[in-house]
Amino acid sequence: MHTIQEVLTEVMKRVKPSPEDRERVMRVVDKIKGNIEKAASARGLKLRIEVEGSLAKDTWVATDRDIDLFIIFPHGTSKDFAQEIGLELAKSGVGEGWRLGYAEHPYVEASVDGYTVDIVPSIEIGEGERPVTAVDRTPLHTKFVLKKLDEKMRDDVRLLKQFMKGIGVYGAELKVGGFSGYLCELLVINYGSFEKVLEEASKWKSRTVIDYMKYYKEGEAEQLFNSPLVMIDPVDRRRNAAAAVSLQCYATFIAAAGRFLENPSREYFFPPKEQVEINKTLEKLKERGSSLVVVKTGCPKLPSDVLWGEVQRSLMKAVGLLERYDFVVLDQKAWSDEERHVLFILELEMRRLRKGKVHQGPKVWYQEDVKRFLEKHLKGENVLAGPSIKGDRWYVELKRKYTEAKELLEREFAKLSLSKDMMEEVKKGFSVYVDEEIEELFIEEPRLLSEVNALVRKRPLWLK
Amino acid sequence: MHTIQEVLTEVMKRVKPSPEDRERVMRVVDKIKGNIEKAASARGLKLRIEVEGSLAKDTWVATDRDIDLFIIFPHGTSKDFAQEIGLELAKSGVGEGWRLGYAEHPYVEASVDGYTVDIVPSIEIGEGERPVTAVDRTPLHTKFVLKKLDEKMRDDVRLLKQFMKGIGVYGAELKVGGFSGYLCELLVINYGSFEKVLEEASKWKSRTVIDYMKYYKEGEAEQLFNSPLVMIDPVDRRRNAAAAVSLQCYATFIAAAGRFLENPSREYFFPPKEQVEINKTLEKLKERGSSLVVVKTGCPKLPSDVLWGEVQRSLMKAVGLLERYDFVVLDQKAWSDEERHVLFILELEMRRLRKGKVHQGPKVWYQEDVKRFLEKHLKGENVLAGPSIKGDRWYVELKRKYTEAKELLEREFAKLSLSKDMMEEVKKGFSVYVDEEIEELFIEEPRLLSEVNALVRKRPLWLK
Repeated sequence: MHTIQEVLTEVMKRVKPSPEDRERVMRVVDKIKGNIEKAASARGLKLRIEVEGSLAKDTWVATDRDIDLFIIFPHGTSKDFAQEIGLELAKSGVGEGWRLGYAEHPYVEASVDGYTVDIVPSIEIGEGERPVTAVDRTPLHTKFVLKKLDEKMRDDVRLLKQFMKGIGVYGAELKVGGFSGYLCELLVINYGSFEKVLEEASKWKSRTVIDYMKYYKEGEAEQLFNSPLVMIDPVDRRRNAAAAVSLQCYATFIAAAGRFLENPSREYFFPPKEQVEINKTLEKLKERGSSLVVVKTGCPKLPSDVLWGEVQRSLMKAVGLLERYDFVVLDQKAWSDEERHVLFILELEMRRLRKGKVHQGPKVWYQEDVKRFLEKHLKGENVLAGPSIKGDRWYVELKRKYTEAKELLEREFAKLSLSKDMMEEVKKGFSVYVDEEIEELFIEEPRLLSEVNALVRKRPLWLK
Repeated sequence: MHTIQEVLTEVMKRVKPSPEDRERVMRVVDKIKGNIEKAASARGLKLRIEVEGSLAKDTWVATDRDIDLFIIFPHGTSKDFAQEIGLELAKSGVGEGWRLGYAEHPYVEASVDGYTVDIVPSIEIGEGERPVTAVDRTPLHTKFVLKKLDEKMRDDVRLLKQFMKGIGVYGAELKVGGFSGYLCELLVINYGSFEKVLEEASKWKSRTVIDYMKYYKEGEAEQLFNSPLVMIDPVDRRRNAAAAVSLQCYATFIAAAGRFLENPSREYFFPPKEQVEINKTLEKLKERGSSLVVVKTGCPKLPSDVLWGEVQRSLMKAVGLLERYDFVVLDQKAWSDEERHVLFILELEMRRLRKGKVHQGPKVWYQEDVKRFLEKHLKGENVLAGPSIKGDRWYVELKRKYTEAKELLEREFAKLSLSKDMMEEVKKGFSVYVDEEIEELFIEEPRLLSEVNALVRKRPLWLK
């Protein structure tokens, strides 16, 4: 058992960038900046290039490999011009191997010397103008955070980010539904330190509203936003900076925070590597007696957040289908390499149901309903037993259409109303694997094994 | 398809006693009466012997073989004297082979020339005195019914009784929970005819109150009695003559009445004999995929109604036990020959459950509850997976104590809080049979086969 301070000192050594870390990233930044400036002056353009994100705020974690650069055109530049020329300049900044990304605005994403570099064209907003998009807000976030954080607090942000990473709730992208870097910064600003954040979070109830700037009156913000966690953005009172945080991530953070304070350990920050073995995972599943069904299909070419939105919706449609046919879904998870495969992993209480299904009819005194019910079921082909009276009602036992989850998915999955993109992939083909059949999937896609293992184990790695 | 009149005419031929039927029963009555009178005058006693029940009211069905005789001591006779001497006289009336029965009062029951004869000692109640027991009321019932029924109506009572017998709801004893003969008479008196009774009953809703004598104000009787059917006894306003009618019998009568009026058929009165085959019954069960479990134990020596009360309560305890361990009980039935065996027949959705069972824990923000939950389950031997967070809650998957219904019953049935009498039998021994194992029970007890067959078929025989 270690004290919190011992743990944090040890973690800090790994999360705080060393002078060498800083030098290395600045070399990459300077190179790209130089390229863009050269290209700009060749066109006779006057603009600023600014580092944004955690690098600008000095809240990055040593192992991060992200660089955010903004090409800022002067106030009054036309949007079309800024976008077109901005992307041209961005591309000349990174050379080969870029791709276009889209959030609210297009930007250039590239891999340079091991870093993921995002270059975003934007236009300076005038004094007093309201930020409208994420791109507009970014420089304001940087300014605000720089003003509010001292060095100790910046280190606490690094600890908090690493803690979130360790327990699997870091990242506002749909795939995670967790806490953004900016949200981590705001939490430290609001509560004062890493430890304070955890202490307060461990006491969070079903909903938490933080309005650091006191924009709203008591109870007002609760009404306006409906996520479990509401963090009014200090630079934009209409925005919830924690809107991405799902109930699952919110609850996980609360639980992990409370547990960590009682049992501090570095494993919250750096979860131990698991030795995952196919046989043991399948054996464990067999011991529990539940069944795993995996639906595999192709991956539509879509921006990550759009993809994950469609994947999650498709997963819930698969769950709905199974439940409509009386299968009990214990757990579900989607997985994708965002390139070739989308997999829907479903854990069922049982993969096979009995043939008969009790169907409740009307109470005996609703004469017209009874007439219809008996007419339908007295000669019905699908009747296995009854109709019969139990208590004050008619019942009948009908034959199920599907008794095997695999068959149900094989026959009905492609009939679900999935998104157009997912539908196209499913139409091209999909396969269903049950229990021991999943083994062949692991061979094809080894990364799946740890996903399935986590689903079978269920216990988070930080929980001891 | 026959008309109602065709069906009733045919049924009437079988239910109305012929002159020969009447002669035969009166010979037996006269013989017993003679014996008792002789014994009474030998003791110098002056008393009346009266035929009661359906024989006295001439509402008996030709196939009935019941004789009710009352030995009536004069008003003012002491209760002890009447009981002691009354039973002595009763015994001398029937010779060998009697046994003592108990309802509210002791009486002598004997089998004479193929008839079941009940001889009840009683004391004449004075003018204006209120009847207190069933024995006191019986002569009043007879008087009332004789006054109200003409010959046509008496025949309608016979039809109604036979209808009730055919659909399995005749008899106020606990084993049946159905309609007594007196209740059938009151229904015909109230509605006027057999057909009228069925027409009105087919329109009965969740509760029906009949107050022929208009003893109560509108809505008053509903408050006082809470059975589904309330028939205020014309000779005793404090008594519900339909108190024995269970919801099951009430609903069955409503349903059968409605169905009969639409599809009249003699099968409601005389259900067809089923050809029951062990193999077909077990095959049918297998096709539906449910499981049958039978618990067999000895039969305590108890008066029938007491026995069935205890048997039904024990059955419900067995259902409760199975449900407590997550088995889904689809249907249940007790059977007894009232001599040697009591059998509890339980139909289960599945006889085997998976090893794991999801156990819901507290929401993450109830810190103290979470602490206790995690302490209990982090090192718990019975944990198969988790603890884990899903949505805003902790869950854990535990090992079930029992995955087989048979094992559960074998280990826990004797620990249930059954009645003292049942407990004694269970302690002496009980066996549990599942699915194909039941076959050996059929060989030992062939009457069980039609019980099990009805439970598997579920559809009442009258329902076409």
